[in-house]
Amino acid sequence: MNNKIEEFKIKPLIEPKYVHPVKIEYKQNGKDKTWEAVRNFDSVSILIYHEEKKSFLLVKQFRPAVYLNDNSKKFTYELCAGLVDKDASLVQIAKEEIDEECGFDVPLKEIEKITSFYTNVGVSGGCQYLYYAKIDDSMKIHEGGGIHDEQIELMYLPIEEYKEFMYDETKAKTPGLMFAFMWFMENKLK
Amino acid sequence: MNNKIEEFKIKPLIEPKYVHPVKIEYKQNGKDKTWEAVRNFDSVSILIYHEEKKSFLLVKQFRPAVYLNDNSKKFTYELCAGLVDKDASLVQIAKEEIDEECGFDVPLKEIEKITSFYTNVGVSGGCQYLYYAKIDDSMKIHEGGGIHDEQIELMYLPIEEYKEFMYDETKAKTPGLMFAFMWFMENKLK
Repeated sequence: MNNKIEEFKIKPLIEPKYVHPVKIEYKQNGKDKTWEAVRNFDSVSILIYHEEKKSFLLVKQFRPAVYLNDNSKKFTYELCAGLVDKDASLVQIAKEEIDEECGFDVPLKEIEKITSFYTNVGVSGGCQYLYYAKIDDSMKIHEGGGIHDEQIELMYLPIEEYKEFMYDETKAKTPGLMFAFMWFMENKLK
Repeated sequence: MNNKIEEFKIKPLIEPKYVHPVKIEYKQNGKDKTWEAVRNFDSVSILIYHEEKKSFLLVKQFRPAVYLNDNSKKFTYELCAGLVDKDASLVQIAKEEIDEECGFDVPLKEIEKITSFYTNVGVSGGCQYLYYAKIDDSMKIHEGGGIHDEQIELMYLPIEEYKEFMYDETKAKTPGLMFAFMWFMENKLK
């Protein structure tokens, strides 16, 4: 995908819709403390393995927060993922994200929970629930790419290339994705 | 450590010192877009392995942002880590964090870079540089615990218990820590 970013401007956030900064005051073991944080949604992410292609299916997208920090990073490489921002089970949200972002219809019972972790313990404190799903072409229902003009690109990473990709620091990626690859190698590729 | 949390209060963040919310406006492939983010520091983290104890040395602390999200999580379990908030090399900051948080003086040349990743691509976009250091009791200089009343507790995790610990979801932890464990098992325990 051609990814042309122009007129990148940073302004104060006056009326937040998604990122709600808070000041926390508390006593820890009798001592007064304060902390600055943002309220954030929990999330689900899914390691997707395409059996016939022997490849992981990743999503590649422009992340303004990453680009703000390092403008050499015009893409990030991530697991298919989404916010827990509706009244549905975690695995149902995982299923819907695999549909919306990747265009595959995976039966609920075939989406396997791996574990959960906290992705940003300092500032946002959100929990991410990690799942695994195996796909094949019979499950394909559309081209994927996200909804509401998300401009998400799909990328198949052949599993024999995972290690080179994982340690390539020119490609911005998340530690959750890297953990998920290692989990797969240990648990699914025996 | 007894960890008594009282009078936990959440207030609007009026004058932030650390967490600076911003609104980003840009054009992506000709289309107007906006995004809400916070400006954040990059960070370093260090997987520390104590050779004689055959254990990882972890830090255990109260994280207000995690507790805000789930008040059953009174501790998080993390790699020794710190913000890149001063004019020093990354590896020097890593060395200082091992000293301040853990009380060990590790020679710079023995601190090994593993890789880097982005810990919160949606909101904060910070990069974390991951290191590895092997310690032994000859390097011990003080009890650790952090500076400025950080109330950081140290914990030795015997390596044979790493897997049970890693998949125990009652213990809040980061995906960077989980990836680092897997990296160690593959690269240092051959």
